[in-house]
Amino acid sequence: VLAAPAIAQTNPKITWRLTSSFPKGLDTIYGGADTFSKYLSEATDGNFQIQPFAAGELVPGLQAADAVSAGTVEACHTVAYYYWGKDPTWALPSAVPFALNARGMNAWHYHGGGIDLANAFFGQHNIVAFPGGNTGVQMGGWFRKEIKTVADLSGLKFRIGGFAGAIVSKLGVIPQQIAGGEIYQALEKGTIDAAEWVGPYDDEKLGFQKVAPYYYYPGFWEGGPTVHLMFNKAKFEELPANYKSLVRTAAQATDANMLQKYDYVNPMAIKKLVAAGAQLRPFSPEILNACFDAAQETYAELVSSNENFKTIWESIIAFRKEHFLWQQVAEFTNDTFMMQLQRAGKLG
Amino acid sequence: VLAAPAIAQTNPKITWRLTSSFPKGLDTIYGGADTFSKYLSEATDGNFQIQPFAAGELVPGLQAADAVSAGTVEACHTVAYYYWGKDPTWALPSAVPFALNARGMNAWHYHGGGIDLANAFFGQHNIVAFPGGNTGVQMGGWFRKEIKTVADLSGLKFRIGGFAGAIVSKLGVIPQQIAGGEIYQALEKGTIDAAEWVGPYDDEKLGFQKVAPYYYYPGFWEGGPTVHLMFNKAKFEELPANYKSLVRTAAQATDANMLQKYDYVNPMAIKKLVAAGAQLRPFSPEILNACFDAAQETYAELVSSNENFKTIWESIIAFRKEHFLWQQVAEFTNDTFMMQLQRAGKLG
Repeated sequence: VLAAPAIAQTNPKITWRLTSSFPKGLDTIYGGADTFSKYLSEATDGNFQIQPFAAGELVPGLQAADAVSAGTVEACHTVAYYYWGKDPTWALPSAVPFALNARGMNAWHYHGGGIDLANAFFGQHNIVAFPGGNTGVQMGGWFRKEIKTVADLSGLKFRIGGFAGAIVSKLGVIPQQIAGGEIYQALEKGTIDAAEWVGPYDDEKLGFQKVAPYYYYPGFWEGGPTVHLMFNKAKFEELPANYKSLVRTAAQATDANMLQKYDYVNPMAIKKLVAAGAQLRPFSPEILNACFDAAQETYAELVSSNENFKTIWESIIAFRKEHFLWQQVAEFTNDTFMMQLQRAGKLG
Repeated sequence: VLAAPAIAQTNPKITWRLTSSFPKGLDTIYGGADTFSKYLSEATDGNFQIQPFAAGELVPGLQAADAVSAGTVEACHTVAYYYWGKDPTWALPSAVPFALNARGMNAWHYHGGGIDLANAFFGQHNIVAFPGGNTGVQMGGWFRKEIKTVADLSGLKFRIGGFAGAIVSKLGVIPQQIAGGEIYQALEKGTIDAAEWVGPYDDEKLGFQKVAPYYYYPGFWEGGPTVHLMFNKAKFEELPANYKSLVRTAAQATDANMLQKYDYVNPMAIKKLVAAGAQLRPFSPEILNACFDAAQETYAELVSSNENFKTIWESIIAFRKEHFLWQQVAEFTNDTFMMQLQRAGKLG
């Protein structure tokens, strides 16, 4: 038989736009879109271009997925929980209270069927999505006064995101929606009592410690939030096979890269914040347990009323209990010993 | 001015071989080479082929980097600490006792200058390398008898890898070199007293619990070991720019993917092992502290005698103390609470 002739494949010229939900000032999370774009462009000699735009340049930040769903923009970089108001199922592949940490989330996405389960849902909205970043667990936010008991939550005006806000509202918190640029002034004036933003690296730029010095942790509603790269499904399906694969590979690398960067920059930032007056405070066991119970109540309601939610949530929690069992063995013990050495000043 | 004419770039046909240090039976760690090869091939329509070979098919597993250095094989997938006998500096970009965990290691590699520092060293051996996998912290191994004190280590015949073996030998351990396939029989006969392999998923296939039931943790000599993809430097430099970038992107995705897979499969495996009779045991604080002191002594010696070692080690430890400070705040607190819920049976 004759060998098939060698055909030199070309990388076809494709130019897409990507709308980010983030301002450029959040260079680590916004930067995920730049990283992804660079990986694609470089691997194709500049033929596959996805140009990132900051929140508001093309579309408001919180409407990024809507624009992709409608096909007015080919791609976006966003957090799926922003869209929980349409259906709380949106929140599950990103972050919900007391779910997985970053490593657990990634294990579930890539090897526990998470990416496929999420796309079965996103597909109903003409979207194909891949994980495209993770911040690691976030901080719990900045509080003007210490909060110690569940009673302290009552009437607390707290700037906190959608789905998590709905859960803590069961404990008397009054969730507030305020754009990032207005938080400082609202805290200063006392219009709000507390605000969560991201973690030390991003928070440090905004100087919250000057007006709300109590910096609580952990942000239990975002144990390891996944940021998604989303694509209009019809546009994605039109890509040649090599570009489809490259998108997945570049997204997986981008996803890892964001967490790697946060893990590198957060330690320096937390030290700066403490030096500048931030007072670190853990949430009390009483508050954590009450919030967990409130979350469980919400999950039970949603599982019984929302089939999409049920399917994905049951997959997450089946893995969650195994993940936090295994993490107790080698990882936790190793980290604990290393932290003891750190506290004893033995790590140099 | 006239625009430059659009030139359709092609993906040139390149076929390389990659020699793995691992047998195919270790499907997660060996599988990293398959993943990498698939990502490259798919993204280039099959034009950039890197064919993986298992340990021994082309080159013995522990000589993979030598073959790449000499240019007899273009690429390998290996653990750099295998080559510590040439120079202990080789061990640093992979794993040494009491260094970083997986997230810390990745933060240092990608954003703390680790990849460049490692390549300044690997370049002296005609090698360019990128992280291409991580197992997460390993287990401490299988012991025929319980060990509780440093005195119990004296004369202990322990199958443990090179650099870590040299350190624990300071405490009386007699390190043993035995190929994976012969460990079971050696433990059964009592030729050796203990053996470390990888972690639950890989260990479970070998049935060690039947002959050495005490399964110790953590494997403090591999807090988050990096597996490397290495390339002959001259061959790598000949690649077109788009392939060079694609190699880096695919390696970063492969690196993440291996940890993601281990994190998904280890929980099920640890449960099976315990059900089959494995007795989980943490190393005692006495043993951990004595091993840390022995490691510190070794590091001090090497820093004063080996300029390459000094440069890389000082970069790692400068980040290590910051990493384990920050990890104590939100991550540790969040994980601790989730583990408490797991132990209380509240995670479903």
